[in-house]
Amino acid sequence: MFTSQNALTTPLAVSHLARRFQQVRAQTERLIEPLSAEDCQLQSMPDASPAKWHLAHLTWFFETFVLERFESGFKPFDRSFRVLFNSYYNGVGDKYPRPRRGLISRPSLQEVLAYRRQVNARVLDVLFRTGEADHIELAQLIELGLQHEQQHQELLLTDIQHALSFNPQRPAYARRWPLVSTAPQPLRWHAYDGGLARHGFDAGLDGAFAFDNETPRHPVYIAPFELASRLITNGEMMEFMADSGYQRPELWLAMGWDWVQSGQHDLPLYWQTEAQGQCRAFRHFTLQGLQDVDPNTPVCHLSYFEADALARWAGARLPTEFEWELAARLLPALPASGSQPGNFVETGAFHPLPQQQASIDAPAQMLGDAWEWTQSSYSPYPGYQPWEGLVGEYNGKFMCNQFVLRGGSCATPQSHVRASYRNFFPPDAQWQFSGVRLARNIQG
Amino acid sequence: MFTSQNALTTPLAVSHLARRFQQVRAQTERLIEPLSAEDCQLQSMPDASPAKWHLAHLTWFFETFVLERFESGFKPFDRSFRVLFNSYYNGVGDKYPRPRRGLISRPSLQEVLAYRRQVNARVLDVLFRTGEADHIELAQLIELGLQHEQQHQELLLTDIQHALSFNPQRPAYARRWPLVSTAPQPLRWHAYDGGLARHGFDAGLDGAFAFDNETPRHPVYIAPFELASRLITNGEMMEFMADSGYQRPELWLAMGWDWVQSGQHDLPLYWQTEAQGQCRAFRHFTLQGLQDVDPNTPVCHLSYFEADALARWAGARLPTEFEWELAARLLPALPASGSQPGNFVETGAFHPLPQQQASIDAPAQMLGDAWEWTQSSYSPYPGYQPWEGLVGEYNGKFMCNQFVLRGGSCATPQSHVRASYRNFFPPDAQWQFSGVRLARNIQG
Amino acid sequence: MFTSQNALTTPLAVSHLARRFQQVRAQTERLIEPLSAEDCQLQSMPDASPAKWHLAHLTWFFETFVLERFESGFKPFDRSFRVLFNSYYNGVGDKYPRPRRGLISRPSLQEVLAYRRQVNARVLDVLFRTGEADHIELAQLIELGLQHEQQHQELLLTDIQHALSFNPQRPAYARRWPLVSTAPQPLRWHAYDGGLARHGFDAGLDGAFAFDNETPRHPVYIAPFELASRLITNGEMMEFMADSGYQRPELWLAMGWDWVQSGQHDLPLYWQTEAQGQCRAFRHFTLQGLQDVDPNTPVCHLSYFEADALARWAGARLPTEFEWELAARLLPALPASGSQPGNFVETGAFHPLPQQQASIDAPAQMLGDAWEWTQSSYSPYPGYQPWEGLVGEYNGKFMCNQFVLRGGSCATPQSHVRASYRNFFPPDAQWQFSGVRLARNIQG
Amino acid sequence: MFTSQNALTTPLAVSHLARRFQQVRAQTERLIEPLSAEDCQLQSMPDASPAKWHLAHLTWFFETFVLERFESGFKPFDRSFRVLFNSYYNGVGDKYPRPRRGLISRPSLQEVLAYRRQVNARVLDVLFRTGEADHIELAQLIELGLQHEQQHQELLLTDIQHALSFNPQRPAYARRWPLVSTAPQPLRWHAYDGGLARHGFDAGLDGAFAFDNETPRHPVYIAPFELASRLITNGEMMEFMADSGYQRPELWLAMGWDWVQSGQHDLPLYWQTEAQGQCRAFRHFTLQGLQDVDPNTPVCHLSYFEADALARWAGARLPTEFEWELAARLLPALPASGSQPGNFVETGAFHPLPQQQASIDAPAQMLGDAWEWTQSSYSPYPGYQPWEGLVGEYNGKFMCNQFVLRGGSCATPQSHVRASYRNFFPPDAQWQFSGVRLARNIQG
Repeated sequence: MFTSQNALTTPLAVSHLARRFQQVRAQTERLIEPLSAEDCQLQSMPDASPAKWHLAHLTWFFETFVLERFESGFKPFDRSFRVLFNSYYNGVGDKYPRPRRGLISRPSLQEVLAYRRQVNARVLDVLFRTGEADHIELAQLIELGLQHEQQHQELLLTDIQHALSFNPQRPAYARRWPLVSTAPQPLRWHAYDGGLARHGFDAGLDGAFAFDNETPRHPVYIAPFELASRLITNGEMMEFMADSGYQRPELWLAMGWDWVQSGQHDLPLYWQTEAQGQCRAFRHFTLQGLQDVDPNTPVCHLSYFEADALARWAGARLPTEFEWELAARLLPALPASGSQPGNFVETGAFHPLPQQQASIDAPAQMLGDAWEWTQSSYSPYPGYQPWEGLVGEYNGKFMCNQFVLRGGSCATPQSHVRASYRNFFPPDAQWQFSGVRLARNIQG
Repeated sequence: MFTSQNALTTPLAVSHLARRFQQVRAQTERLIEPLSAEDCQLQSMPDASPAKWHLAHLTWFFETFVLERFESGFKPFDRSFRVLFNSYYNGVGDKYPRPRRGLISRPSLQEVLAYRRQVNARVLDVLFRTGEADHIELAQLIELGLQHEQQHQELLLTDIQHALSFNPQRPAYARRWPLVSTAPQPLRWHAYDGGLARHGFDAGLDGAFAFDNETPRHPVYIAPFELASRLITNGEMMEFMADSGYQRPELWLAMGWDWVQSGQHDLPLYWQTEAQGQCRAFRHFTLQGLQDVDPNTPVCHLSYFEADALARWAGARLPTEFEWELAARLLPALPASGSQPGNFVETGAFHPLPQQQASIDAPAQMLGDAWEWTQSSYSPYPGYQPWEGLVGEYNGKFMCNQFVLRGGSCATPQSHVRASYRNFFPPDAQWQFSGVRLARNIQG
Repeated sequence: MFTSQNALTTPLAVSHLARRFQQVRAQTERLIEPLSAEDCQLQSMPDASPAKWHLAHLTWFFETFVLERFESGFKPFDRSFRVLFNSYYNGVGDKYPRPRRGLISRPSLQEVLAYRRQVNARVLDVLFRTGEADHIELAQLIELGLQHEQQHQELLLTDIQHALSFNPQRPAYARRWPLVSTAPQPLRWHAYDGGLARHGFDAGLDGAFAFDNETPRHPVYIAPFELASRLITNGEMMEFMADSGYQRPELWLAMGWDWVQSGQHDLPLYWQTEAQGQCRAFRHFTLQGLQDVDPNTPVCHLSYFEADALARWAGARLPTEFEWELAARLLPALPASGSQPGNFVETGAFHPLPQQQASIDAPAQMLGDAWEWTQSSYSPYPGYQPWEGLVGEYNGKFMCNQFVLRGGSCATPQSHVRASYRNFFPPDAQWQFSGVRLARNIQG
Repeated sequence: MFTSQNALTTPLAVSHLARRFQQVRAQTERLIEPLSAEDCQLQSMPDASPAKWHLAHLTWFFETFVLERFESGFKPFDRSFRVLFNSYYNGVGDKYPRPRRGLISRPSLQEVLAYRRQVNARVLDVLFRTGEADHIELAQLIELGLQHEQQHQELLLTDIQHALSFNPQRPAYARRWPLVSTAPQPLRWHAYDGGLARHGFDAGLDGAFAFDNETPRHPVYIAPFELASRLITNGEMMEFMADSGYQRPELWLAMGWDWVQSGQHDLPLYWQTEAQGQCRAFRHFTLQGLQDVDPNTPVCHLSYFEADALARWAGARLPTEFEWELAARLLPALPASGSQPGNFVETGAFHPLPQQQASIDAPAQMLGDAWEWTQSSYSPYPGYQPWEGLVGEYNGKFMCNQFVLRGGSCATPQSHVRASYRNFFPPDAQWQFSGVRLARNIQG
């Protein structure tokens, strides 16, 4: 097994896994339908990758970790791809320099799609041929490849939004705006008792798969706290700005204030301001093109620095990842991974949606819409062990100077999120659908 | 009060505080005795400050936070000092740019020493005159100023070591080498039960003062673990290097590996290597000049990246700050702050010392010698509130992308360390006396 | 007129100019035939531009400087193109940031080609309609646009070579290798008398067009000198390297030595070295793919720093631009612009060629093959006046920290070169076909 | 001889040279009298050096190039100085990194002064002992050392001005302000015929010494031109600014415009602006402290970019270095090097002075006050040969991307300037006393 903790406890039956494989793989290709080959080559910063590179790298993952191991007489599709589409696996070998991924005009998009087709066929062939002895590990690796593919589906969308934002024509990825009717919803507080409770992945609660960083399940003591009933909105962000939020150092972490000043930040990413009569109107670039900012919609594309300053300005704080998880597990109808309701990529909005009705019993928008920054550093859980083998580089080596985000976004596949899921980004990252939910202490 | 948690619960009597004030202030000046005015102006990197700047800034602290508030008819010593010697207090106003502190030839060292003398006299005058109503807050602020002064005493030493290291003549700050006799000591493991326990500052256990970041005391659940009986030695660091430790990416965090490669790191800071017959001999620059590396002495000046890689190579890990604190509170004779034995700045070694005898009952070298990197990110404790007022900028705003170190070093004043004390630095910082103690899980 | 010096003295008849317009414009499109739309979007450094951008910018030039002025009822093809495809004309207005030209996925290559077709038709329409009064200035602007187009044809080739060099598959732009048979030719010296002579553009000698930087014709005094009979070869470059040329500071300008050390240069651009038995063999990336380095072929892609060091190592120096021009005007059969023999882009080699036979009467390879670095800074000629109007930004504002190159290369259109032609690049530029011809003083 | 052109044709008699040696060396020490040891250690940018470093380097020059060669039984004063105080002589060996010269607290200023005293005595001893055979070369090297010392005397002043400018107390190096009475003087033009004339050092005209870069004397053809009667003033600079000079790209070289924008330049170096009632008043930091800007005084501390833009704005241009030299040689009473009148360092103004009376016959302020930027790139004269031996690195290797300045300044020793003297700096250098004299073409 590649895991010390057996993440995938009940592998799917072959036919089910094959169907899931085909669906997830096809979904990636569906995401590039609005894009040309030229669009698919764009790389607008070292942290982002071209859509074509995502398409190829996801296939490289199956070729390297599944076919090379399980296919008899394995031959690579193209020898140069091993380097070209290796992301960060030192154990696999050399890597093409990340900041140059936009320079890969060859292979062409058509060749990459052919690469995908061939590897798909070979993976399915291997899956159907593999005997029982190897089945569990093979199924685990395929499932890992699919979870990996879903992560990159979200990155493909956030990366293309970033790339298109540099085009003065402001091209829209999708065209369905306005998304819904909007009206203000008051922000309420939900109280939680705290205490000692177990956190982290639990196969019974969270489904059949987890990344190693969600394990092991372990006790954590939490003090009583309150959580906001919804995400912070664009309207509240505008109040922050009107109150000179970007100009007051006392609201910011020292590193955040340096970031504000050196980057001359005074608006969220993708926002622009226009004089409109006497007023200042805000527009922002979205996957639906350049649109007016709706005050009732959750604010997103915030850095941790902005999220933290916004919370401080509001007289509150960001939740810890365990507070978030505790609340998520108490949601009235949180089912196992794969079927919770919410604004995920499947809605086709590609943007957070305003809260539609008051939330009485539980916080709204916990899942989907926007990832929620937590104040928790991305650290190993007590007893954490990275997976064994080459895939051990998947998560553990990034546990430094990053913060955990929880809950998924409008660009996340619905079946990819669970209460134990830990996303993570450095505190200056803005290009994800990252938003804010407030928390506060309950004074004893 | 400037603290929401009343950090200084039992202020010292006036006469005691006055004596302590004189002692701590005089100690700072004693530290520059081996240095010329030209030495005291050196700034070798933006993170380090000239000794002269430390001397002036520490005085600025008393002038700004004590005299300006409590002295009637307050007038500044020199109006330009308010900006020149402000470190990072946005609430106080403008700051002279940190990377240019080495450009302050005027005021001269003599003028700065005169500044110290005048402010000292005025602070004592204020202390003796202040009535009972104000006494507690005044005493708290003076105590804070003295704790602040002690922190900078350590920085003054580590900064001057860094600055002198660029001088090809390799000048020694002190001349007392060899420090002690040395012999190898085996590394043993001490087991701890774990469980739910309260952590953070406790006035009964830890003495009269704490920084806000050590509060509030709160419950934390810890799994059973083991801690090494001593600090990792230079000899073990040499084994790591002989085993290609700096060349194997699998031992490093991703960010650490980038650091290794971009900075071409293959030796600890201050080390150099010389051919000696067939062998490779190591020397290192210390506050005692350029000396042979002793294999039995604790390794120091490691970045978090190096500490983490060294632990992984050794099949262990770094402790959390709570594991460390739990073990520290169980030390046989840990007295309240101010009188624990250990290699602190008072020994005059200005360098870690080798373990002198086997430790049977408890880990050795927990206090003094070298700060111990923990795997804990520097985060607020649950319920943490920064102090009120201008001094609220002291700690909280730095809680981002830093790691906690515990236990003090050979450059720390003995009376400054306690079990709840949290030091913190970014993971690439090397110029402190930062070393490694290993921890490991106990398999259930 | 847009020129104060009437550069284009005898405008071509309308029908001739129309035919030339069609030929030059069509040639640009011919150059991208081996490239995909994805190739045409590549930008590998800020100094280089995507082929698609070249195609659009050249059209923008005609749209902005010809149509906007002479077409009645002018409407832009696309309003956003005015900014997107402005290179550096502050007088025209805003410019899309140069380092981001590779982020222009839209307009697509197909749209850019449609843009070219429409503007072509409109320019021809304007040309045929324009009355006599305006004809000279219109013809001059069209001719300027065509000369401009020819300059970019060369840049398109050097930029795409640079971009493709980052592809690990090392794709060839053209496939015709080996180019010719090669054999060593001795280096001889040709002596020139020097004296006072007029230099710069002369319509009688140099044809109908010149850039403003070639004017005015003016007297220059030259001391007697000798010029090498051919360009320096790859073989001579290998000798330089074998003689530790990249390791000896005394051979380099101070700024060149900094360049060597900070960039870790020890090979010409595009070269790589391979162990071949006991020896070190050289291969280099060319527009014909990765090929063995031929010792008899002129070395190219040298920076000024390398050219200068190579000359010093050879006991010679680089010529001044006036020495070069004097020699060029004495070539036996130098005809007017447009018909001199030589290895220009029309040969289809896309690479310098080895000298085929000994040159007795005059230096060989003066025109074509590789641009020849001169030791002359790119400065205004005495009495120089930039053109009037918006096109005045064409040349003059770049007369700082660049060196003049003379003679054209294997990527230059034949009809584009003349004896007075001044090319110019900063001393660290390597990606042009830039080579070396030696000069030396004649001792009196 | 160390020169191929015998620069020093008539070496001074031993006693005269000894006296000159003592005078020049003593003058350097006189320049640091207003400075403390702490001041003498300041380095405010990599291009500038601490005064202490200048003092030591100048001594290193005599020790390395004179004593090491001519003193029998030579032993270095301190072995580490060979590296520490080597500026850029690769032939001598390793160099301490230039940007770290401010980190040399040891040797102290007192030790450096002792170094000077010892080397002075040894040089004089060698001078008196040396026999006739070696005398000429020894005398030449001593003279070179003294010329070198004079160059650094000027740099010492401009470097300390730069360093002190970062001190918020704005300390004055000298205190003698206002310098003279001031009144406006009209700008007139002086016409020159041009023609073919010899330029460069001529021992008969220019005295006994020249740097290699002033040789060989050679013919240059110059077109007729006019030269302004005085330097451009601060008042004219204010008009340029009032006319949006720093905001109009058409006035600037492309590289200059980038410099304006990336450095946010909108004032000359050391200037600051203050609201004064309705107006904007200018003050500037000088060696005489912070003072009001006088409109009749020559503007200085301009980069080449600013000088060039100012000339273009004025409808004129910068002169070439040969135009300047031609005019200088026609000055009514230009004596040989060493005795021309003018505002040199000996006046003690340490700042340019306003023109005191109308200049009828010849341009005023040609010598002293401020160096005059020319449009001439710093290139080798035809037939130029660097000196032989280690001192060959003195000049030639810097002939790249620099512009020539002529005429000396208020910080130049009077005996150091001559009509053939070529100073040179990169186009962005501002911290010298660099000003502007206009030239213009005479239309035939």
